[in-house]
Amino acid sequence: MSGTAQIGVTGLAVMGRNLARNFARNGFTVAVHNRTAARTRELIEGFGTEGSFVPAESAEEFVAALERPRRLIIMVKAGDPTDAVIEEFAPLLEPGDVIIDGGNAHFADTRRRERELREAGIHFVGVGISGGEEGALHGPSIMPGGSRESYASLGPLLEKIAAKAPDGTPCTTHIGPDGAGHFVKMVHNGIEYADMQLIAEAYHLLREVAGYSPAKIAETFRGWNTGRLDSYLIEITAEVLAHTDAATGQPFVDIVADRAEQKGTGRWTVQIALDLGVPVSGIAEAVFARSLSGHAELRAASRDLPGPTPRPLGDEEAARFADQVEQALYASKIVSYTQGFHQIQAGSDAYDWGIDPGAVASIWRAGCIIRAAFLDRIRAAYDTQPELPSLLSDKQFAEEIGAAQDDWRAVVADTARQGVPAPGFAAALAYYDALRARRLPAALTQGQRDFFGAHTYRRTDRDGSFHTLWGGDRSEERTG
Amino acid sequence: MSGTAQIGVTGLAVMGRNLARNFARNGFTVAVHNRTAARTRELIEGFGTEGSFVPAESAEEFVAALERPRRLIIMVKAGDPTDAVIEEFAPLLEPGDVIIDGGNAHFADTRRRERELREAGIHFVGVGISGGEEGALHGPSIMPGGSRESYASLGPLLEKIAAKAPDGTPCTTHIGPDGAGHFVKMVHNGIEYADMQLIAEAYHLLREVAGYSPAKIAETFRGWNTGRLDSYLIEITAEVLAHTDAATGQPFVDIVADRAEQKGTGRWTVQIALDLGVPVSGIAEAVFARSLSGHAELRAASRDLPGPTPRPLGDEEAARFADQVEQALYASKIVSYTQGFHQIQAGSDAYDWGIDPGAVASIWRAGCIIRAAFLDRIRAAYDTQPELPSLLSDKQFAEEIGAAQDDWRAVVADTARQGVPAPGFAAALAYYDALRARRLPAALTQGQRDFFGAHTYRRTDRDGSFHTLWGGDRSEERTG
Repeated sequence: MSGTAQIGVTGLAVMGRNLARNFARNGFTVAVHNRTAARTRELIEGFGTEGSFVPAESAEEFVAALERPRRLIIMVKAGDPTDAVIEEFAPLLEPGDVIIDGGNAHFADTRRRERELREAGIHFVGVGISGGEEGALHGPSIMPGGSRESYASLGPLLEKIAAKAPDGTPCTTHIGPDGAGHFVKMVHNGIEYADMQLIAEAYHLLREVAGYSPAKIAETFRGWNTGRLDSYLIEITAEVLAHTDAATGQPFVDIVADRAEQKGTGRWTVQIALDLGVPVSGIAEAVFARSLSGHAELRAASRDLPGPTPRPLGDEEAARFADQVEQALYASKIVSYTQGFHQIQAGSDAYDWGIDPGAVASIWRAGCIIRAAFLDRIRAAYDTQPELPSLLSDKQFAEEIGAAQDDWRAVVADTARQGVPAPGFAAALAYYDALRARRLPAALTQGQRDFFGAHTYRRTDRDGSFHTLWGGDRSEERTG
Repeated sequence: MSGTAQIGVTGLAVMGRNLARNFARNGFTVAVHNRTAARTRELIEGFGTEGSFVPAESAEEFVAALERPRRLIIMVKAGDPTDAVIEEFAPLLEPGDVIIDGGNAHFADTRRRERELREAGIHFVGVGISGGEEGALHGPSIMPGGSRESYASLGPLLEKIAAKAPDGTPCTTHIGPDGAGHFVKMVHNGIEYADMQLIAEAYHLLREVAGYSPAKIAETFRGWNTGRLDSYLIEITAEVLAHTDAATGQPFVDIVADRAEQKGTGRWTVQIALDLGVPVSGIAEAVFARSLSGHAELRAASRDLPGPTPRPLGDEEAARFADQVEQALYASKIVSYTQGFHQIQAGSDAYDWGIDPGAVASIWRAGCIIRAAFLDRIRAAYDTQPELPSLLSDKQFAEEIGAAQDDWRAVVADTARQGVPAPGFAAALAYYDALRARRLPAALTQGQRDFFGAHTYRRTDRDGSFHTLWGGDRSEERTG
C-alpha cells in the first residue's frame, strides 16, 4: 500500500518543523512524525492550514503515508539519536526508498550509514542544511550527498524549497557520493567560524585602536555592507552592534559575557583538515579564539601581564585606520575561503567525490550563514577555470589582495605593536607570505629531522632520499 | 618455570635493539626476540658481549626466559602491529605480568589495551620514549603510564637506563594511569614541532631580513646556545646550518628540498587539543607550516603573488635585528610551552590522571629532543607553585616576557611589513595579547550566534542564559 505524501519529516523540533512547513508551503504533501505525538499535533494545530500535512503517530503509519519510492527526512540530534531513528525505520522500508539525514552529522558517520543501508538497497542521503531556523522555513542552502540516483528522486523537491541565488538558481545541487554533502557543510561551518572571527577582530580593532563606539562601528559595518564585503554576517553584525540593552541602557555587546561557545563543526573542520594535510590556519585560530575566551581562570591569571596600551587616534587617523581594517578584513577573508576550498578539493580527491567547487560556491550564495556577494565571484572564478589550483591563483583575487596588502600589512603590524590580538588577520597574512615564498625554512626542518631521527631528506638537484651521517664523518648516503 | 631475564624486548629494529643494549649495559639480563630470528642473531653477534642477553626464537621461549612477574617491552610499529604482538603474547602470560608498549601509540589505543588486559590481570604500560636512536642507547627520556603497581616493578629498571638530568635525577617517573604516558609523549612531540617551527622562523628572518649567510646564522645560534635558549635543538640547528654539501660546495640547507614531512604525533596533539578545548595555536601553525611546504602545486601557482621585498640592512642594524629575533624566539617559546602544559593539565583533568607538571618538566630536562636549560625553570615554577594556572602566571616568566615584548612586537610587525612569514611568532603574540585582554570580541561572536541561531548568551551582570528576539521586538528573554 502506498501513501500520497511526496516527503516525510520525522523529528519536529524547530528545524524539522520549519522544513516540513517549507515543503508544504511549496505545494508538497508532507507526512509528519515525532517521537512524542504532542509535537506533531502542535504543528498541525499551529500551521496545518499552510499546506497539505499528513500527521502520523506511529512509525508504521508514517511510512505508510509516503508515496513510493519513499523519501523521509530525519531531523534529530546528530550521533546516537540518528542511528536509533534509522534502526527504527529501515526495517519498514523497501529497496529504492531514500532516507535523508538533515542533521549536522560527521561525514564519516554518514559514510558508514550509507554503506550499511546500501546493502539493503536503501539510499541514504546525508544533507547539510544551512540557514538556521529562518532558512529552514524560507529557503536554506542545501548540500545533499548520496547516490546520483537518490538525487534524481529528491533533487526536484530540494530545488523547490531551497533559497534562490540573486540570479534565480536554487541553492542546492548534488554535491557528490555518500558523505560529500555533510563534508561540505562541515567546511561551510569552518569558514563561518573564520568569517566570524575576522569580523570580531575588525570590531575589536575599531573599538580599541580607532576608539569607536559600538554605534559608530555599526555604522562603519553598514557602510562596508554596501561594498565588496556585502554579506549576511556583516549585516547582522551591524544589527548586534547597534542594539542597546534595555535593562542597562548600555550597548548590548558590552553586557554580553565575552565567552564564545561552539557546537563542534568548526573543531571537526580543523581535525579533518589535519588528517588531509590542508593548512586551515584561519579556521583553527577562530576555534582557538573561542576556546581561549572560555578559559576564565587562565584569563584572570593573565590579566596583569605587561603590554602596551593603544595610543588614541585623531578623527582623521581613525577614519584612515578603519579603511585599512576593511582592506585587512577583505584580504584575510580571501585567504579563509582559499583554505576552505582547498580542504573541499582535498576531501573530494581523498574520497573520490568529484566535487565541483564552483557549484559549491554557487549554492552558498543565498540561504546559508556565509551568504555573500563575494561567493558569486568565487563561483565565477571556478566556472571559468575549473582547474584553478587555489583561489589565490585567480587573477582578480590576486589583484585585489595585491591592492589590499599594504593596508593589511600595516594593520597586522599595528595589532602586534599596540597589543590588540588579531590572530586571524595575522595567520592569513603569514599563509599568504608562506605560499608566495620562493624558499621556505622547511629545508632546515628536514635537516633537523635527519639529524636527530635519521628521517632523511630530498635534494633540490636530484631525485631520491638522502641521509647525512651526522654522528660520523658527515658524508651523505642515498637511502631510496 | 621461571627464567632469569629481568626484562624482555621484542621487536629489534634500531630503537628496540638500542633499548635492549641499554638495559644490558646497565647490568640487566635481557631476553631478546624478533619476528624474524635473523635480527636477534645480528644483535647477539654485533653486541652480545656488551652484557647479558638471552636470545629467544619463539614467543614461548621468550616468555619462558623472563623472571616473574614478567616484564616485556614491545618495540614495533604503532597501530595494528602492536595489537598483533599483544594477541600473540598475552595468552602466554599470567596475572601480575607487565606488557610495555614503547612505540608511539595514540593514547586512546593505550587506554583501550590497558582496559582489555586489566581484565586478564595483566598490567599494560604505554611508555613514551623520546631521544631517537641515540637516546634509546645512551639514555632516553621515558614517560610511562599504567598502574602504580606496574611502576613499582618496572620503574627501577627504567630509572637505571633513563637519561640523567644535570642534577642527577633520572629522566623518568610514573606519569599517571593508563594512557597518561603516551599522552604526555604526544604533547612532547607537539611542543617539539612548535620549537622547530620557531627556530625555522628565526633562521628564515635572519636569512631574509638580516641578510645573514647560513654560516653566520650558525654562529648566531651557537651564541644563543650559551644563553637562556641553551637546548639540543638550537645546538643541532647550528650544526645543520654550518654543514656544507660535499657534492655542490653549497650550504647544506640550500640543497635540501624545502618540503617538511611529518609522522603524525604533531597532528594528533592538535586534534586532541581541539577535543579538550585547549588553544594550541603554536603547535597548529607548526603542523600547518609543514603541510603547506609540501603543497608543491599550490606554491608554484602562488609564487608570483604580489608582496614586498625585504630592504637590506646595514651590519649594525642586522645585529640589532638578530638580538630582537632572539627575544621574539624566547618569548614565543614561553608561549608554546604554556600551551603544551595547558594541554597536559587539561588531559590530566579530563582523564583523572593526576599528572604532576613539574615532574614532566623534570624528566624532559635530558634525553629527549626538546631537552633544554629552560625546562629546569619550568620544573622550578611548578615545584614552587603546584597550582599555577599557566606558565605565564609564573612571576619570572611574566617578567622575562615583559622584558622581551617590545622586541617581540617589533619582529612580528617587521615580518608583516617585509613579507617574510612567521606564523609561529605571530600566533604566540596574539595568544599572549588575547589572554591579557580585559574584554575579548567573543561577546560579539555570542551576539551573532544568538542572532542567527538562537544559541543564547550570558550576561556580565547576572546569571542565566538569555536570548534576544532579534526577529521581533528585540526584547530579551531568559532561557535558562
